[in-house]
Amino acid sequence: MKQNLKKELENIAKEALQASRELAILPTGAKNAVLKDMARALLSSKAVILRANKKDIALSRGRPKAFIDRLTLTPERIKQMADSLLDIVKLKDPVGEVIRAWKIPNGLRIDKVRSPIGVVAIIYESRPNVTSDCIGLCFKSGNSVILRGGSESLNSNIAIYNVLSKVMGRHRVPAGAINLIATRERKAVDALLKLNNYIDVVIPRGGEELINKVVRSSRIPVIKHYKGICHVYVDEWADLNMSERICFNAKVQRPGVCNAMESMLVHRDVAARFLPGMLKKFKDAGVEIRGCALTCRIAKWARAATEIDYRTEYLGLILSVKVVNDLDEAISHINNYGSHHSDTIVTENKDNALRFLARVDSACVYLNASTRFTDGNQFGMGAEIGISTDKLHARGPMGLEELTTYKYMVFGSGQIRE
Amino acid sequence: MKQNLKKELENIAKEALQASRELAILPTGAKNAVLKDMARALLSSKAVILRANKKDIALSRGRPKAFIDRLTLTPERIKQMADSLLDIVKLKDPVGEVIRAWKIPNGLRIDKVRSPIGVVAIIYESRPNVTSDCIGLCFKSGNSVILRGGSESLNSNIAIYNVLSKVMGRHRVPAGAINLIATRERKAVDALLKLNNYIDVVIPRGGEELINKVVRSSRIPVIKHYKGICHVYVDEWADLNMSERICFNAKVQRPGVCNAMESMLVHRDVAARFLPGMLKKFKDAGVEIRGCALTCRIAKWARAATEIDYRTEYLGLILSVKVVNDLDEAISHINNYGSHHSDTIVTENKDNALRFLARVDSACVYLNASTRFTDGNQFGMGAEIGISTDKLHARGPMGLEELTTYKYMVFGSGQIRE
Repeated sequence: MKQNLKKELENIAKEALQASRELAILPTGAKNAVLKDMARALLSSKAVILRANKKDIALSRGRPKAFIDRLTLTPERIKQMADSLLDIVKLKDPVGEVIRAWKIPNGLRIDKVRSPIGVVAIIYESRPNVTSDCIGLCFKSGNSVILRGGSESLNSNIAIYNVLSKVMGRHRVPAGAINLIATRERKAVDALLKLNNYIDVVIPRGGEELINKVVRSSRIPVIKHYKGICHVYVDEWADLNMSERICFNAKVQRPGVCNAMESMLVHRDVAARFLPGMLKKFKDAGVEIRGCALTCRIAKWARAATEIDYRTEYLGLILSVKVVNDLDEAISHINNYGSHHSDTIVTENKDNALRFLARVDSACVYLNASTRFTDGNQFGMGAEIGISTDKLHARGPMGLEELTTYKYMVFGSGQIRE
Repeated sequence: MKQNLKKELENIAKEALQASRELAILPTGAKNAVLKDMARALLSSKAVILRANKKDIALSRGRPKAFIDRLTLTPERIKQMADSLLDIVKLKDPVGEVIRAWKIPNGLRIDKVRSPIGVVAIIYESRPNVTSDCIGLCFKSGNSVILRGGSESLNSNIAIYNVLSKVMGRHRVPAGAINLIATRERKAVDALLKLNNYIDVVIPRGGEELINKVVRSSRIPVIKHYKGICHVYVDEWADLNMSERICFNAKVQRPGVCNAMESMLVHRDVAARFLPGMLKKFKDAGVEIRGCALTCRIAKWARAATEIDYRTEYLGLILSVKVVNDLDEAISHINNYGSHHSDTIVTENKDNALRFLARVDSACVYLNASTRFTDGNQFGMGAEIGISTDKLHARGPMGLEELTTYKYMVFGSGQIRE
């Protein structure tokens, strides 16, 4: 059985590689026609998809409400999935773009050309919409994709996959272009991660445990989408009204997402003026505060923060708060405790701003704005595969362009090396 | 003992991370001053370095001549090392470059800014000049570097490292900026590869075995510099005189390097006209031919090629030769047997050229030129860390720019997300 699974996965990966050679040269028009048909097919297959989703929900009885909510599809959510595919149609095709072209003295012309990566494997947890989003993004960027979704959404994923796969078939796109590992067998992930001869990159999307597991066992390069422990630092030179607006927005507007603030740092010289009002506002909004000693003195109702708090992504209405002695303490706290995702300084002091932006080692560093803008759509990049907390290949929002590599095409007329 | 080594490596990596924060903001002028002093110091410490190198050579008695040659330093080679550092001074500092800047509708300005990667570990084999080259390139690109050279060149590496490290100290660059793992202990590499909390990327340079070992045991992202199994395909529409010049150059001009041709593919319709003269020329130059059946019929002195030949990087005067039925067979042979390094088509047919360039999945694809041009200096990029056969982050020649990542600096005036 295990041997069979390994063999089967290897065949899938081989076919994906084969298909990727064809995808790499598919014209933009052909890809867009497929994507539009996919959107249509999702809408016309609503009933089938919802039926499959009901099965998944029934199997997940007893799970937390937030879990069930993420898993649940509705006609509206399917409409959103279709709309996402149509959004991808509108995005510029990155493949074939000449990033740079130059001539060298012997007359050789070198074109650095954007090309698909090849075969992308995505390992994700319960949201079934990820299935169609990832298929759309990988297809438009000319990559074959191998999907391994959470077992809780297996029925939904299979239904969505079947709908989209049929469209591919009608357009004569090689079947290996999109693949779903349709088994609950846990060994499948391990086996997949050994197929470095066929798969070019693995993108795990989910909790920290999943990502650590993938990193530990993968022989394929991994682009990690870790948690977001995002900070706002209120500098001694901050406009405190602006600080209050930004901190409140970063924490409360949508606390369950990776670009929400989890930790607030405040310069000690403004703590007495800033914290009482700010913490009251958080309290009124139902935010639990876990603070340093000074914070707890200002807000008696706050709990004392532990080391662990400063390393925790709450994804909910909890906030850690720390008063710092100066800018450099804020910077080194963020670099040591944060997750290199998105961090803000609020200040009117230009030198402090530049020092913070240069020294904080995160994908997105903000001056006087909410961390909540870290998002492909907000950045004007369009739909995204996720937000990379890695530094290699892709950092921050990962859209179509980040799903490509490049190659050098060199045009000669008989040049040889002397 | 093993515990001590682990602890020691962790301390080195921690200090490297700490130092990288300072390197990231070091001005270009300061970095260039250090590099110039390093070049000077290498020259004035020739005697010390040569003495250490003599020890390494003595310890390697009995090894093959090519091995000893790679290991040996001479006053001239030390001069070349110094010159390489001066070449790096001349290269544009990539750090801080604004790759793109744009505004989004709410007024936020987004700058995509080139930044150092952080901590780079380089694992390499016997050439001691790699020590100073890598230190120079990583330092100029604002990265801390941890070097682990071959144990055969340990004395030479320590001597070079000490000279350069002293210069760093004089300029008050944090000591963690450059590091050498000065032990023959084999476990050191394994322990190093687990330090993913401190090290951002590992670049192994050496034989296939070394690279495979690193990939298998690393939790840190690896940029692989695999072998070069480079092809020249002589198309049915090729100018056969040009083909002969290019093939001869690609094989013979410097056979021991990764961008030399290892396999020659010839369209069957020109085989009878092209091969006899070409193979004769190779024979006269001392090139051993391992050919397909047809090749062996044309050149009775050729040996029959096996499957393994087509996957072998000879790095010497041996060449595998295969007659193919058409362009697509050539393309799929290259994609299946090659190492995705550098491959050439010789043809006067534009459609065939474009099909080859688009479909061959290699870092550098050439029309009518020798594969020998795949090289940072030839490409006009300057000195290189190596030639990546990976597709992620960096592909092909890896210079200063490829040793950087980017971050988004977002400038606001109080923007919050609605």
